[in-house]
Amino acid sequence: MPLELTDAQRDDLLDELHRLLNYNQPSEALARLESMHPADQAHLIEDLDAEDREAILLAMSDERTASILEYLDEEPRQVFVDGLEPERLSQILFHVDEDLAADIVAELPDDQVASVLALLAPEDRETVEELLDLPEESAGRWMSPDVVLLQRTWTAEEAIDFLRREGPDASHPFYLYVVDTERRLQGVLSLRHLITAAPSTPLENLMARDVISVPVELDQEKAAEKLRHYNLMALPVVDEEGRLVGVLEADDVLDVQVEEATEDIYLQAGLSVDENPYTPVLVSLRRRVPWLLINLTFGFLSALIVSSFEGTISRVAALAAFMPIIAGHGGNTGSQTTTLIVRGIAVGEIERRDLFRILRKELAFGVSYGLVAGLLSSILAYILEGNFWLAVIVGVSMMGNIILAGMAGSLLPLGMQALKVDPALASTVWLTTITDWLGFVLLLGLGTLFMKQLGG
Amino acid sequence: MPLELTDAQRDDLLDELHRLLNYNQPSEALARLESMHPADQAHLIEDLDAEDREAILLAMSDERTASILEYLDEEPRQVFVDGLEPERLSQILFHVDEDLAADIVAELPDDQVASVLALLAPEDRETVEELLDLPEESAGRWMSPDVVLLQRTWTAEEAIDFLRREGPDASHPFYLYVVDTERRLQGVLSLRHLITAAPSTPLENLMARDVISVPVELDQEKAAEKLRHYNLMALPVVDEEGRLVGVLEADDVLDVQVEEATEDIYLQAGLSVDENPYTPVLVSLRRRVPWLLINLTFGFLSALIVSSFEGTISRVAALAAFMPIIAGHGGNTGSQTTTLIVRGIAVGEIERRDLFRILRKELAFGVSYGLVAGLLSSILAYILEGNFWLAVIVGVSMMGNIILAGMAGSLLPLGMQALKVDPALASTVWLTTITDWLGFVLLLGLGTLFMKQLGG
Repeated sequence: MPLELTDAQRDDLLDELHRLLNYNQPSEALARLESMHPADQAHLIEDLDAEDREAILLAMSDERTASILEYLDEEPRQVFVDGLEPERLSQILFHVDEDLAADIVAELPDDQVASVLALLAPEDRETVEELLDLPEESAGRWMSPDVVLLQRTWTAEEAIDFLRREGPDASHPFYLYVVDTERRLQGVLSLRHLITAAPSTPLENLMARDVISVPVELDQEKAAEKLRHYNLMALPVVDEEGRLVGVLEADDVLDVQVEEATEDIYLQAGLSVDENPYTPVLVSLRRRVPWLLINLTFGFLSALIVSSFEGTISRVAALAAFMPIIAGHGGNTGSQTTTLIVRGIAVGEIERRDLFRILRKELAFGVSYGLVAGLLSSILAYILEGNFWLAVIVGVSMMGNIILAGMAGSLLPLGMQALKVDPALASTVWLTTITDWLGFVLLLGLGTLFMKQLGG
Repeated sequence: MPLELTDAQRDDLLDELHRLLNYNQPSEALARLESMHPADQAHLIEDLDAEDREAILLAMSDERTASILEYLDEEPRQVFVDGLEPERLSQILFHVDEDLAADIVAELPDDQVASVLALLAPEDRETVEELLDLPEESAGRWMSPDVVLLQRTWTAEEAIDFLRREGPDASHPFYLYVVDTERRLQGVLSLRHLITAAPSTPLENLMARDVISVPVELDQEKAAEKLRHYNLMALPVVDEEGRLVGVLEADDVLDVQVEEATEDIYLQAGLSVDENPYTPVLVSLRRRVPWLLINLTFGFLSALIVSSFEGTISRVAALAAFMPIIAGHGGNTGSQTTTLIVRGIAVGEIERRDLFRILRKELAFGVSYGLVAGLLSSILAYILEGNFWLAVIVGVSMMGNIILAGMAGSLLPLGMQALKVDPALASTVWLTTITDWLGFVLLLGLGTLFMKQLGG
């Protein structure tokens, strides 16, 4: 059974590891972790500080370090790898799957890449170099390049003998792929089909010919969608000539999906994917400030809009009290619409042709809810200020802004999609900027028009 | 090869299907789809209107309808199923995997559940009933109950014979699970290991005993995390007695993950998971209005805060122009922090003990960026209004609100987590409410204190 620790046990163990490493007893520390699954070891090691992490990982055999690296998060892995000598690193990489090896080499400082590559075994080096040539967010970068290839001219018996000889090395042989002499993908069969067939049956007669595959350069998100669309456990990956170069498996796609979901959520807030709560302040500033400054600029435009109504405000200061609620509530209503649409686009449920259907629905929603919220705001305004005309203006502005927010909340992400900009890119932030402007113009504009009735 | 259609081809095909169904030629329509993968057929059928959808699905054989249902989205599936007679439905369910059958029965109106269950084959009924007894978001509801079970007393040869007899029916036999006579999980082995072993080897000697499994009632999100943590393609699911009841596979977990990500994203905007852009207006209103009204109430509090400063505003109306930018920009900065932390908690990178480390970092960030944004706002305020003291007050309020926003942005999600409330629950919305209040109090409070200097 894998070790399941309570929080307290975990803290105790971390303290003990820290103490042992401090007293320079790394082999004692290693012994404490020995019985655990490498994934659990990696999870604990992530919680050590960088110095302890380095000490314990360096004390391990190359093979054990390699098994931990397979499970370590990207950031601690990178910190550890950056501190290694090229010789040691290449020895560790020897025990690591080629796709992870490529990821690790890709993160190295430019001047170290060549020296580490030179130290790898020739076949490994070739595979890693090929992987590094692929675009960073492509299916190829996530696939396992280790695939069991069966020749279409073989019989079932020959194929089984081949599998026996090859041993259970390749990671997850779920589907078996059949290729021609040029390694071009010809068909697929399951191991079960293979063992239940008569030994002399040619693979050609056993295999299914309709193989769903993806090109090696396909965007990782598209590849993930395809695997999910067809409900598959693995997708073969082929190059331009149709040669089988690897397999993208469902567990890799799980990681793609988590990365893509994080990206979408971060984009909404103008954050870079590499950001996390522990990013050093200076790095955070460099990454976050440009977006915040763009944001600030749009805020200045709000200030300009409001300041152009200063005359009105100085005469009817009560209007200022309702600025935030009208602008903000429009933003909240519209954000719901934008969120629905951005997510719908991301999971492939919404396409551009659905625009009018969505606008109709949002208009109906906006009018209905606008009536409710407008009426409530009117009542509150009357209670607070005792001014009938103010109450009317507040209610009408609230209703108007909610209706416009629904329209803007639909048009903005669909427009971004049409312009081939990722609709996840901060669209609720732009939306609330728009609803701020609309809200201020409505409320203060009406206030100016009805200044006399307001008693200003 | 699967049919890959361009948008135009797709629209043409949909038009043609609509025309054929309109002219009452469903078998012609069916023939158009025949060569396609059921997943692609389902995707096209989803784009037909409900009436056409029903017509084409009803014209299919039960088996074909069943294969389409496996791929159809939940909403159109439910609409179609709701229109079926219990007899027809039970015939279709006969061809459907039991886990999907349970999902379909679970969505039926209460008065139909019993009659449909009564019409199922006895073994199917029993499995479906057992699945229906499980909590809705549990691992058991996502698992495949069809598992290949090998007895620990068997030899490799006996196991292979058993697999041959069973045929390639079970969905994805990636790992083979070994059980005792009570069906209790004892070990796991790969099909590859099995065929490479000497025929007389007992399974006991072949199997790995450290099997990572999940309890059937475990929350789906936790089960998904476990599969991902250990990088597995499948997790065996066991009941309280340790009996193997099903397998949770990586492709099921992909669906869990998409659902959970949608849930998190929707929670942020106060939306229900069942909501989508096509939800009927009345249903949307019922679901969305309660949250919006809570929101509106907090907006009224903002109005109260601002209205208590009406005296100040009527004398220095220029202050009103800077209310939105100070409140809004604090909200944007703090939202970045909240987004990072909420996501970090969701993917398990952040725990409560990290609070102080995060607060320190956010304080440093807030002070540094606060200085920049404060200075810029001061300059703008001076250009716009030519009032030195106003410029100072705007700059200080901006800086103060940014620093406070960073603190609030960290404390809010971590506090929600401590209170066992999902931190994804609209935390950026609460945060921007807080930053609104803080911004108004800072700006208008300082404005009131320095009224004389402002020339009010």
